[in-house]
Amino acid sequence: MTTGTARAVARRAPSPYFTAADVAATGLFGFEGAVAAVAAGLDLLGIVVVGFATALFGGVIRDVLLGDAPPAAFRSPLRIIVAVAGALLAVPFGSLAADAPGVIGVLDAIALALFVAAGAQKALEWGSNGFVVVALGTITGVGGGVIRDLLLSHSPTVLTTGFYATAAIIGAAAQWATAARGIRTPWPMAVGFAVCVTLRTLALAYDWRLPVFG
Amino acid sequence: MTTGTARAVARRAPSPYFTAADVAATGLFGFEGAVAAVAAGLDLLGIVVVGFATALFGGVIRDVLLGDAPPAAFRSPLRIIVAVAGALLAVPFGSLAADAPGVIGVLDAIALALFVAAGAQKALEWGSNGFVVVALGTITGVGGGVIRDLLLSHSPTVLTTGFYATAAIIGAAAQWATAARGIRTPWPMAVGFAVCVTLRTLALAYDWRLPVFG
Amino acid sequence: MTTGTARAVARRAPSPYFTAADVAATGLFGFEGAVAAVAAGLDLLGIVVVGFATALFGGVIRDVLLGDAPPAAFRSPLRIIVAVAGALLAVPFGSLAADAPGVIGVLDAIALALFVAAGAQKALEWGSNGFVVVALGTITGVGGGVIRDLLLSHSPTVLTTGFYATAAIIGAAAQWATAARGIRTPWPMAVGFAVCVTLRTLALAYDWRLPVFG
Repeated sequence: MTTGTARAVARRAPSPYFTAADVAATGLFGFEGAVAAVAAGLDLLGIVVVGFATALFGGVIRDVLLGDAPPAAFRSPLRIIVAVAGALLAVPFGSLAADAPGVIGVLDAIALALFVAAGAQKALEWGSNGFVVVALGTITGVGGGVIRDLLLSHSPTVLTTGFYATAAIIGAAAQWATAARGIRTPWPMAVGFAVCVTLRTLALAYDWRLPVFG
Repeated sequence: MTTGTARAVARRAPSPYFTAADVAATGLFGFEGAVAAVAAGLDLLGIVVVGFATALFGGVIRDVLLGDAPPAAFRSPLRIIVAVAGALLAVPFGSLAADAPGVIGVLDAIALALFVAAGAQKALEWGSNGFVVVALGTITGVGGGVIRDLLLSHSPTVLTTGFYATAAIIGAAAQWATAARGIRTPWPMAVGFAVCVTLRTLALAYDWRLPVFG
Repeated sequence: MTTGTARAVARRAPSPYFTAADVAATGLFGFEGAVAAVAAGLDLLGIVVVGFATALFGGVIRDVLLGDAPPAAFRSPLRIIVAVAGALLAVPFGSLAADAPGVIGVLDAIALALFVAAGAQKALEWGSNGFVVVALGTITGVGGGVIRDLLLSHSPTVLTTGFYATAAIIGAAAQWATAARGIRTPWPMAVGFAVCVTLRTLALAYDWRLPVFG
């Protein structure tokens, strides 16, 4: 359980590495969510709303589950502005990006890995146990994609895409194992990011799949 | 960031104008959500559950995002009773209302504008910045409709309906701008409500649309 | 409204009866959610993610709505481990269970009733009023099934299944009425559990339905 002292510390000084990864992933997911909304034929506002929700949902859920309220996204204008800016970029560049699915796939792998590293890092800074570190890293990474798919009435692709959440879980676990050996920030984040982005990119390139049952 | 003092003040005395708008919108959304559930062929309980969720979800999300836990809806019986009462009215009056879509459209515009004004007002009382005021006003207004559509397996209509979330955003922004000039409660709420309900009603009457891309 | 003192007490010592019911229901819902994911043709990871979300979502929503953050599921590894273990059991036993829908129906009724009893008990321990006790018992019971159906792109079955949420509401109300007469833990929980599981099982056996309107 998180102690009052650990919380007070976390509130005073979230690591700048955490903030950098979290904000960069927010902008990328805002763009990606908006590209999917353009492809679904939504109007300007729908594009902004889907981009906004995709960008912010994973981090908001993470903060609510840690008991960090109000969530970082609603404490300062920064993440809201970055999310909307990312979404608006999809208006001129969206159909270009849709024609290059490989580019979107790699951008998505980078954003996923940034959010996984940021989520696991924040859980570590709050003194969470290993299971919670892995769960929150994964939820932060895949949460945005789940809400995007629900808003666009798709079945969530994180559940049907080979090695998507798997890459998130293995990346977060590697990050936790690195931190548990006493290695200091930002190196556990770097390990979590590298493992997740590598696995996801290889899975894209070689079309990895997990077994199906029943 | 909300200070401890601002929170204590907000907790002691939410403005009665806020409470009136919030509770009135809760009853209207309870009725509306239940009308949609009747049209979807759900049984008595499904009607109550959809009405309950539609009525309370926007305000609950707003309170969770502000860090005001437990949400107002779960601190006293008031909003729960109003939501269920609104939903039950859909049993005798639902099919009547479904035959008059113009009536439902206007009721919905009023409920949307009340929730936008209430959400933006609460964010202002908690000392939030302008981006958060607009985001929370909009989320409070459209949240109920999103959960209603998810529960009934529709694509969220706030994303496909011309000028729906747009009216919410412009109304909340007008409310924030009024409050930022130092004009006192309840006048910023009145401005936010009037702008939102006017835009949404005009959009209904003249079938306004935003541009589509891609 | 929950007082600071009541909260401190609840935090120090949740009743062991609450914990037992909550953890048992978590494992059962993990298994059930994963069985549905196997039937939907998801891969190993999708099965674990759906089982995890089905098992934990109801209790997480309950704790967020009570203002008990971080939720119990994220304070210790216990519920996460139980949820994942329940989900993994669906890999060898899932298709067996799918061939015996009666068995799944009864397991589900038991898990529903355990979560209703646990949710209502926690609300009682936090000093909530009767409406909140019934609402939180019901939300804890049906929340997992709603998120499972959203993730698998079904319309939520709690809304279309005869007497599902109805059994939850009546069970939670009976539990509240028992506690309100001054009868001590664990007897109100036993009453809530027994009423809910009995009604749901009878509804399965005799195909009870509520009236449909419109």
